Amino acid sequence: MTFIKTPTKGMRDFLPKEMELRDYVLKIMSDTYENFGFQKIATPVVEHIENLTSKQGGENEKLIFKIMKRGEKLSNADSSNLDELVDCGLRYDLTVPLTRLYANNMQNLPMPFRAFQTGFSYRAERPQRGRYRELMQCDLDIIGEKSNLAEIELITAVITFLQKLNFKQFTIKINDRQILKAMLNYANMPLELMDKILISLDKMDKIGIDGVREELQKLEIPDEAITKYLSLFNEKKDLFAFCKDLPIADEYVANLLEIIDNVNSQANLVFDPTLVRGMGYYTGCIFEIYADGLTSAIGGGGRYDHMLENYINMSVPACGFSVGFERLLLLLEESGFEVPHTKEKLCYVFDKNISKEEKKSLLKKVNNDRQNNKIVKIVEKSKNFKYQKETLESDGYQIIY
Amino acid sequence: MTFIKTPTKGMRDFLPKEMELRDYVLKIMSDTYENFGFQKIATPVVEHIENLTSKQGGENEKLIFKIMKRGEKLSNADSSNLDELVDCGLRYDLTVPLTRLYANNMQNLPMPFRAFQTGFSYRAERPQRGRYRELMQCDLDIIGEKSNLAEIELITAVITFLQKLNFKQFTIKINDRQILKAMLNYANMPLELMDKILISLDKMDKIGIDGVREELQKLEIPDEAITKYLSLFNEKKDLFAFCKDLPIADEYVANLLEIIDNVNSQANLVFDPTLVRGMGYYTGCIFEIYADGLTSAIGGGGRYDHMLENYINMSVPACGFSVGFERLLLLLEESGFEVPHTKEKLCYVFDKNISKEEKKSLLKKVNNDRQNNKIVKIVEKSKNFKYQKETLESDGYQIIY
Repeated sequence: MTFIKTPTKGMRDFLPKEMELRDYVLKIMSDTYENFGFQKIATPVVEHIENLTSKQGGENEKLIFKIMKRGEKLSNADSSNLDELVDCGLRYDLTVPLTRLYANNMQNLPMPFRAFQTGFSYRAERPQRGRYRELMQCDLDIIGEKSNLAEIELITAVITFLQKLNFKQFTIKINDRQILKAMLNYANMPLELMDKILISLDKMDKIGIDGVREELQKLEIPDEAITKYLSLFNEKKDLFAFCKDLPIADEYVANLLEIIDNVNSQANLVFDPTLVRGMGYYTGCIFEIYADGLTSAIGGGGRYDHMLENYINMSVPACGFSVGFERLLLLLEESGFEVPHTKEKLCYVFDKNISKEEKKSLLKKVNNDRQNNKIVKIVEKSKNFKYQKETLESDGYQIIY
Repeated sequence: MTFIKTPTKGMRDFLPKEMELRDYVLKIMSDTYENFGFQKIATPVVEHIENLTSKQGGENEKLIFKIMKRGEKLSNADSSNLDELVDCGLRYDLTVPLTRLYANNMQNLPMPFRAFQTGFSYRAERPQRGRYRELMQCDLDIIGEKSNLAEIELITAVITFLQKLNFKQFTIKINDRQILKAMLNYANMPLELMDKILISLDKMDKIGIDGVREELQKLEIPDEAITKYLSLFNEKKDLFAFCKDLPIADEYVANLLEIIDNVNSQANLVFDPTLVRGMGYYTGCIFEIYADGLTSAIGGGGRYDHMLENYINMSVPACGFSVGFERLLLLLEESGFEVPHTKEKLCYVFDKNISKEEKKSLLKKVNNDRQNNKIVKIVEKSKNFKYQKETLESDGYQIIY
């Protein structure tokens, strides 16, 4: 009989010590977000294949785990066309299912709706450190709030959560898709190349201004436009100074300033004109969260005011913030974070010759301690009691013999 | 663009009210089992197809959601053989992954190991009331405990959990595979038909003694044997009286008596010689939990001392108890169970003409309340304030205007 002991490629088993940390972080997150009025929802990991391949998922759509049809539908399918064999797949993010849930239930949900969803997503990527094929995602979304109250509340909620984990060394970078557009207009950059230009701009912190210039030149953009565009980044400016010469309505700048002003007393929030965010569905404010010293984000989000229009017959503004749970866990583990313990741990050790009556009364005592919210194990004394005792004690148990 | 708003067939979206109950029940469960020294583990929902089709899953193996290979492996596969296209699938229970995790990590786990695993399993069944294609399972297992301490602790833990939910009207039926075998020997029933005979016996509460007789006759078992076998059920007897004439060692009976004796002060535990449990891997004590008035179990388990041998090169005793989470939820919902709320809920409503400064100081107040562990929302006053107020109040929010 073939039996494979390791998890499937790129996925993980979690042993008790790891689970304790994961559960603790999720608990702090739930408690915090609950206080912000967010309500938990959940969706299946299996999603209609049509919804997964509807082109809102970008690169992730290439990484779908596809599920075969079953029964008659499978035997009737034309196996020369592999797509015909498939009717669903594993979700690659929580945004598609949130959209689906909202479209299907909006009449039963509060307006605005503060949604909180955690769950696994699946991406058939090449596994590497910190990148998994089964990854926990934690999404906060406010649907139906057109004002920047959404951005302020989302960012504050995430900051509060991280601070409760004693995670303090981080920066939130913020920008706005409208500013990104105004920057292109200011420099007469060809708008039809917007996506490609922004992909290059996004790499500024990795390849530097000269690297970006080279990439833009490859796009055959006139040198004059490139030079004017890149001159924007010659010196670090605050938001107000940066936007002074841009063709952008004052209200966009005021909007972003208000967000920064409201959040900055709680954590370091900085305007970064090179912040892009990959997904094309963002329409306004965008943000990413960086642990100090690391170059890749541990979370991010933004406003996506038009996405829901595609699925419901009305315009509903929306804004979301997703924390990279797996990356955060990695950082906590590396920093030696310990889950605080509050319950007393006892282990009753009994002799193998214990009588039935003694055992019965011992079990009563044990269950009484448990009623008093202690963690209590009961085990037979082993031949190597020294080792047994050491193991239990290193696991935090006080031995009662 | 095709976009399907409903979840995939047989699966469910969970709205906030449902999630609140599910989370509450899981929290009570985790807290309770933690006090019994159980440690949480988790495994991926995606499992090697080899492990899912290894014949320990019984009927469930027919219901596997199969996942297609990807990339080159898919294009190189022979599509005329559909099995060749598949390399993994969604787990149909938590037992296969627990076995795998234990086999792969036993040297890093305590001995005995008290494991607690919750997670979704997947079965492509025909959906019907209370039966879902994505179902939450909650498994407790003690691996490495050969004495009946395992059974006593597992049953006590589940009883304690249910009682904490104020769920009191239930009975635990208990039996032993050794007694089932002794009953067959006592009546000279053909042992090679054991599985089929037990399937019929299992239906006693549904089809009655005459129904079982008919089924056994169809198996062409001599009438004499059938009559002697069924005479065992002529009158309800306690365990001791029932086993008096059976060819079974006293220790098995004493073992079961001790379990009943230890648990009976806490809940109703009854010996039921017609209890079978479907899975062939059980070796000793088996049990099922029934809500009063319902004929199908809300949970069950038993001892499976030889299953792990197949995967590791040593014999390790094991015993498990799985609670049917979805069925329990249904019962709680039907009984009108309400999640107890402890946090105060406030909603600050502000006028749309609020100044930036006023909004900023309001947000400070809001966040201060949240630091004091209150659930606080902040919303703009809507044109239909009466409706807005009613909705918020029905959701438990106290309005502050």
